[in-house]
Amino acid sequence: MRKLRVGILGATGAVGQHMVIALQRHPWFEITEVAASDRSVGFAYAERVAWRMSEPIPEPVGRLRIKECAPPLECDFVLAALSAELAKNVEYEFAAAGCPVVSNSSYYRMHERVPLVIPEINADHLRILPHQQKAESFGRGFIVTNPNCTTIGLCLPLAPLHRRFGLEKVFITSMQAISGAGYTGLHALDIFDNVLPHIDGEEPKVVDEPKKILGKLHGDAWVHEEFAVSAQCNRVPVEDGHTICVSVGLRNKPSLEEVKAAMREFRGLPQEVSLPTAPAYPVIVSDENNRPQPRLDLRAGGGMTCVVGRLRPCEILDYKFVTLSHNLIRGAAGAALLNAELLYQQGYLR
Amino acid sequence: MRKLRVGILGATGAVGQHMVIALQRHPWFEITEVAASDRSVGFAYAERVAWRMSEPIPEPVGRLRIKECAPPLECDFVLAALSAELAKNVEYEFAAAGCPVVSNSSYYRMHERVPLVIPEINADHLRILPHQQKAESFGRGFIVTNPNCTTIGLCLPLAPLHRRFGLEKVFITSMQAISGAGYTGLHALDIFDNVLPHIDGEEPKVVDEPKKILGKLHGDAWVHEEFAVSAQCNRVPVEDGHTICVSVGLRNKPSLEEVKAAMREFRGLPQEVSLPTAPAYPVIVSDENNRPQPRLDLRAGGGMTCVVGRLRPCEILDYKFVTLSHNLIRGAAGAALLNAELLYQQGYLR
Amino acid sequence: MRKLRVGILGATGAVGQHMVIALQRHPWFEITEVAASDRSVGFAYAERVAWRMSEPIPEPVGRLRIKECAPPLECDFVLAALSAELAKNVEYEFAAAGCPVVSNSSYYRMHERVPLVIPEINADHLRILPHQQKAESFGRGFIVTNPNCTTIGLCLPLAPLHRRFGLEKVFITSMQAISGAGYTGLHALDIFDNVLPHIDGEEPKVVDEPKKILGKLHGDAWVHEEFAVSAQCNRVPVEDGHTICVSVGLRNKPSLEEVKAAMREFRGLPQEVSLPTAPAYPVIVSDENNRPQPRLDLRAGGGMTCVVGRLRPCEILDYKFVTLSHNLIRGAAGAALLNAELLYQQGYLR
Amino acid sequence: MRKLRVGILGATGAVGQHMVIALQRHPWFEITEVAASDRSVGFAYAERVAWRMSEPIPEPVGRLRIKECAPPLECDFVLAALSAELAKNVEYEFAAAGCPVVSNSSYYRMHERVPLVIPEINADHLRILPHQQKAESFGRGFIVTNPNCTTIGLCLPLAPLHRRFGLEKVFITSMQAISGAGYTGLHALDIFDNVLPHIDGEEPKVVDEPKKILGKLHGDAWVHEEFAVSAQCNRVPVEDGHTICVSVGLRNKPSLEEVKAAMREFRGLPQEVSLPTAPAYPVIVSDENNRPQPRLDLRAGGGMTCVVGRLRPCEILDYKFVTLSHNLIRGAAGAALLNAELLYQQGYLR
Repeated sequence: MRKLRVGILGATGAVGQHMVIALQRHPWFEITEVAASDRSVGFAYAERVAWRMSEPIPEPVGRLRIKECAPPLECDFVLAALSAELAKNVEYEFAAAGCPVVSNSSYYRMHERVPLVIPEINADHLRILPHQQKAESFGRGFIVTNPNCTTIGLCLPLAPLHRRFGLEKVFITSMQAISGAGYTGLHALDIFDNVLPHIDGEEPKVVDEPKKILGKLHGDAWVHEEFAVSAQCNRVPVEDGHTICVSVGLRNKPSLEEVKAAMREFRGLPQEVSLPTAPAYPVIVSDENNRPQPRLDLRAGGGMTCVVGRLRPCEILDYKFVTLSHNLIRGAAGAALLNAELLYQQGYLR
Repeated sequence: MRKLRVGILGATGAVGQHMVIALQRHPWFEITEVAASDRSVGFAYAERVAWRMSEPIPEPVGRLRIKECAPPLECDFVLAALSAELAKNVEYEFAAAGCPVVSNSSYYRMHERVPLVIPEINADHLRILPHQQKAESFGRGFIVTNPNCTTIGLCLPLAPLHRRFGLEKVFITSMQAISGAGYTGLHALDIFDNVLPHIDGEEPKVVDEPKKILGKLHGDAWVHEEFAVSAQCNRVPVEDGHTICVSVGLRNKPSLEEVKAAMREFRGLPQEVSLPTAPAYPVIVSDENNRPQPRLDLRAGGGMTCVVGRLRPCEILDYKFVTLSHNLIRGAAGAALLNAELLYQQGYLR
Repeated sequence: MRKLRVGILGATGAVGQHMVIALQRHPWFEITEVAASDRSVGFAYAERVAWRMSEPIPEPVGRLRIKECAPPLECDFVLAALSAELAKNVEYEFAAAGCPVVSNSSYYRMHERVPLVIPEINADHLRILPHQQKAESFGRGFIVTNPNCTTIGLCLPLAPLHRRFGLEKVFITSMQAISGAGYTGLHALDIFDNVLPHIDGEEPKVVDEPKKILGKLHGDAWVHEEFAVSAQCNRVPVEDGHTICVSVGLRNKPSLEEVKAAMREFRGLPQEVSLPTAPAYPVIVSDENNRPQPRLDLRAGGGMTCVVGRLRPCEILDYKFVTLSHNLIRGAAGAALLNAELLYQQGYLR
Repeated sequence: MRKLRVGILGATGAVGQHMVIALQRHPWFEITEVAASDRSVGFAYAERVAWRMSEPIPEPVGRLRIKECAPPLECDFVLAALSAELAKNVEYEFAAAGCPVVSNSSYYRMHERVPLVIPEINADHLRILPHQQKAESFGRGFIVTNPNCTTIGLCLPLAPLHRRFGLEKVFITSMQAISGAGYTGLHALDIFDNVLPHIDGEEPKVVDEPKKILGKLHGDAWVHEEFAVSAQCNRVPVEDGHTICVSVGLRNKPSLEEVKAAMREFRGLPQEVSLPTAPAYPVIVSDENNRPQPRLDLRAGGGMTCVVGRLRPCEILDYKFVTLSHNLIRGAAGAALLNAELLYQQGYLR
């Protein structure tokens, strides 16, 4: 079988590096292009990347010449890990040039013709793509996005509750890792021995994105779900792993055991069709009272499983719990890659 | 003026050390006794304490011989910083021996004849003391307690809201400092680069204590306030300072400006009568969007002021905000000392 | 091929857990016994271990019942990760019972009939074993040890210098990781935002052990190398990885390029015979001026390679450099395992 | 007594903020001007400074308008906390305009007519100033510098050893705090859970500066001391406080007790004439085996005392020890201020 050729946009950044690692030995895809900012163009990837992964740079990727973030690239689709500002034009140009864009960037997430996909939850939202291609005259190009890192870790345990019991209200307080700000996003003394009670632009994403993801696509129009979300997002001095304290109000009034069962039984298309990056369980529920912990649970399912703990009744809403996910794997590089695998399996990538 | 003589129970621990520092150069009180666990008895304080404060041990205290935690001690009252288990018997014995106990320990906080006091909020709860003295035959002894460190940082901004607008519901998620666990409470690898989603016994305290503090004392009977509290308590890798994300539902529906004004205008008896340890403002409200921060705000009011920030409407309840307080000063040593000053000013200590 | 059966002594500790991970999918060995302290005996390993590895417990090991640390165990040899005090009797009893002991413990390292082995450096020291077995009447049992974690990271780059140029003097200052103290070895507030300028018992080990390792075995008598070592050992707030600043005085006066080449060309028996746990390179020399770093270099060679950087002339001795090694892999679990592989390859284990 | 008016150059930076705090309630000096980079000019200090000190901004300083870093300023002298690049021209311009410059910057430290002063050690080097003023036609202006933060913490314990026993060789390995890089000097992920084995430009300073400081001024010519220094400088994840491991070779061969006594008895002019910022003891020697520690010892002498510990014989040179000093106080803001006090006491400032 010929492997599909992948170009990575933003290949030198934190998420781009995780994409490079996730794609080595991938059964369906292989990296043929790496693109980054202008000052790196023309150099070998290994020469210019400030490599921070514990595994070494895969040699064939290290030898690739860095290209500009502009079409055409020698590849069948691109994985994009760009800033929102860059994504606006660059992703559009690739799609317009007929190149599918599987994006981790935030710019197009809430666009009315762009699906915002977590494959376990709303794989069917890909049905918008023909409409998008037609409306934008993209030819075989398109743009598919994955949610914000905090949104993903939140939606995975919420989705089975919503399906079975109906979400009405969601309170969240996040404790987010340093790496979520990018390698140069925080000065050391900003976060050393400190908590930052604000993350620029984060709370609106966490409030809005779940309503689209858990919503429905009727023809070419979305019906966003209508539940209330209140979010307080904080940065804490932890390297990787976003921990979120969640309280939920549910339409039906399930027992604690029913809630736990819903999360534990949750599977999606990636599990059914065994996508290469899919974890066996999207959500694990721990019965221990001091879990999840970044130190102990971050690598569950290869970084693709959310670990939930402390599930218990809430004095105000119905139930509360703590959920942890790997912000750079399930929340970024792995999210985009799982979307690409879904697109391939569904025939959108060829 | 003769200074009142103070004995410190648990003088070698983290809170005890903060008490020692807070009492140097105190206008009303002076330390005459330090008591600690058996293996230190008989040694000079300076010889046995594992001193961790940035200022040196005050010399007169350093020379004191450590006594057993048992009456009688040569003092007019004791400040107690004992574990709950020890406090049960030790504090009772001191009170029964006629020695007033101003306690930071948790054992007697919810006892029906023991006041749980934050002087800015419920100084009038001291009126239970004659009943306590009579019922327990304490003579001139008594027990007064201060709340849990997280409860205090929560109640200071809640009290003015409750008075003006009526609290109905309170959601909190705390991010608590390492020092709150005591110097030996956590192994390094338990909290280094980690978040712990559970603190033993903490959530029930944060749920129950505010209802007593904000409640009313009618004669010798309490009427606890009836509002719902849902708490999720976490430990984060920060040395000092508990940060709490709070959402409140209020009976009246004030504007944002009214909420802010209520907090800013909040003063209590300690401010009115200028108790030595009272800060000028119990609560400061910052208008910047990335405050409070432990690094920047922990020492406000000498560690006795709560700093509130990010006050804004809540999508589910009415308003939400973030509050920070110094867990070892306002939340422990300073809390007990302020109670002692209140007791002195009110004539309960002589 | 039948795999040799391994028992792990101290299987629940930090080093024991690394041994369990290192042995999953091992081509020659398989774990058949796990032994730990009395209070765990009889329980399944998965029930009692406070598992802290990022990978899950290998299932077959998780199901093993924990045994006492006493012979006989159902195994062909034991890997021992015990405290020095325990090791004294326990390791001796196993050897006396005819069971080979491959030990990471410090008790027998400097014993005159016990080899202290880094397989790349002094594999030939195993020739003492027949003498040991005879003198102690051990039958087919024996004790082989590996050095202290800091010693190993120091000796790997020193060995090729010593062979080619003759070591005369070695200055070292170490910056050692928290995990080297064991999971319960440090209170959080002892090391958070702190440097500890002393590690109990460490400096004498770093001074003495290299002289035995780089020394010669003549018949059944050691001739320790005679060079001077001055060591200052510090604990810094880093999770894993011991960084050591080294200055060396050499008998011959090589050029900088010759020193670098000596390290880069260094290979030992494990590389020649391709022991399963042997890295391709025992030592890597970086030419960048800000390497090695724990964050970037700790996993080189699967945690079995030392990374050296900043090699340059010294104003007092001849050359200085910085070396980094993984204290729990190359410095402990991997060290013992590589010794076991060497023993097997050399025919001492059957 | 009229207070001298001080201008702070670089007032918004980390060192500048420490200068502001150190000068509140100063008996001789008062801040009348604050100067900083262009984008802040014209704003009130309190509006533009990213204040990071635990104490609040002194109100009169907070109200000052920020000026350009260019003469003339309304002050009797300036304290300069500028980058080396800026210092080159700016400091020269102030001196040329007749305004004394007391500088913490590195640019002029090794200049042949600029004294590099630690008042306890080489107050007599100020005798170069008339030569400087004449050679450069500075009028009453001049430039006086203090050493690099690491140099100061090193020289304070070395000076008494040099005087009594004659320094021949000095080995140092430093473990330097994050704050030494300035507030924006390090990305969080560069130093979180990491050690950096290189600090740009640091080692040459630590090698060269002590030879000038401990050297002699004959007329208008320096004779630098001739001893060998070998330095390895590292950054560790500690907020404040540079810890240095030192080994010394001495011409005379004192006993351990003589070495300890030399450090303990060390006093200088600042102690003799009681300069306001002078600590009672420039160096304290701890006999405990796990001191100094940043957590416990950083505030000794108000941050102006070096704490030495682990003094013991060295296997290669004569003695070794560990020394700790506060890099922003004794190593920067306090160093410059103590120089200003010395200049005032010696009649150079009026």
